Amino acid sequence: MIDQSTVEKLLKFRDERDWQQFHNSKDLALALSIEASELLEVFLWKKNEDFNRDKLEEELADVLMYGLLLADKNNIDINSIILKKLQKNGEKYPVDKAKGKSDKYDEL
Amino acid sequence: MIDQSTVEKLLKFRDERDWQQFHNSKDLALALSIEASELLEVFLWKKNEDFNRDKLEEELADVLMYGLLLADKNNIDINSIILKKLQKNGEKYPVDKAKGKSDKYDEL
Amino acid sequence: MIDQSTVEKLLKFRDERDWQQFHNSKDLALALSIEASELLEVFLWKKNEDFNRDKLEEELADVLMYGLLLADKNNIDINSIILKKLQKNGEKYPVDKAKGKSDKYDEL
Amino acid sequence: MIDQSTVEKLLKFRDERDWQQFHNSKDLALALSIEASELLEVFLWKKNEDFNRDKLEEELADVLMYGLLLADKNNIDINSIILKKLQKNGEKYPVDKAKGKSDKYDEL
Repeated sequence: MIDQSTVEKLLKFRDERDWQQFHNSKDLALALSIEASELLEVFLWKKNEDFNRDKLEEELADVLMYGLLLADKNNIDINSIILKKLQKNGEKYPVDKAKGKSDKYDEL
Repeated sequence: MIDQSTVEKLLKFRDERDWQQFHNSKDLALALSIEASELLEVFLWKKNEDFNRDKLEEELADVLMYGLLLADKNNIDINSIILKKLQKNGEKYPVDKAKGKSDKYDEL
Repeated sequence: MIDQSTVEKLLKFRDERDWQQFHNSKDLALALSIEASELLEVFLWKKNEDFNRDKLEEELADVLMYGLLLADKNNIDINSIILKKLQKNGEKYPVDKAKGKSDKYDEL
Repeated sequence: MIDQSTVEKLLKFRDERDWQQFHNSKDLALALSIEASELLEVFLWKKNEDFNRDKLEEELADVLMYGLLLADKNNIDINSIILKKLQKNGEKYPVDKAKGKSDKYDEL
């Protein structure tokens, strides 16, 4: 879970630096994608669970912060979009068809 | 913010489908990065705020869900890693140097 | 175009360092994706043509090198896969429907 | 290697559809990064060499085509940027230090 107080500290950090002027939606999506790649780099040339935990935590924090900033920019309620997507995924991946399988829905 | 009840519904969705067996940390990072790119695609060839809001919400939900799953897999407390990263960023981007600038910290 | 002699220098660079042992296809795809994100970072918070040319050249070189290494690893003839994809794209984007439009083929 | 005739067919494909108007450098970098992620998806939840070869070829072709288009847009000579980067990498990864190691240069 992410507390409201955490989100507020993030927004305060942004606003103290007057960064909202740079935070258009497209560039926030770029930033999020770039951070997701830095998270991926933590695993490059490594086995699945063989990684530096501090780096993982740092890069995951970056990804989530840009996600929160993009949501704030567009007045998105994160809980409701996750619940909506879970419902949609439930239709694409019904338990009886998808259980124990990693296939994409169009290959199930 | 993300409610604990939202996180629990996500984990239940995963567990009902027995998907935890596929969710090693490296592939979760891949999935997150792939979803971040699908979010980016919402903006491809478009102006900064000219996008399909439904798609944005769906892709952002996907990104955040994989972030939550990766955190769960590694028993990561999301609030604490965000607060830790904010503190670190505060040192790299002190208000008096970074205010109103979009430069990277090593170019400030 | 990319000369055969350029490809050979790249492979020699790899082999002198005994790096082929790390270059499985999945991690080469990770590396390529990470470099593509570093290329993207050249444009972050910037206007479309407002970027550092030296950085662009460096990151584009990295992307292309991993593309060449992944092709070499899998004995892929790059010319033939590009020509094949152009043909396929030609069917998805026929000139009379796609001319002057940036829409995805399923929205044309 | 990539033949000049392959590059020319790619540019002809673009020009017949009048797509150069959409191809600013930033969005070409976005497109390249998005395609690199689709290439990555070929490996998601899979072992290192366990993938669909047709999909790999298609997605690699897409990545390389956007790389070629971005180079064309900026009059970049691909051979020369690769050779330049190989030289730079040679300094960061001298054979005697880097041989048989997958560490990043700042950890060697």
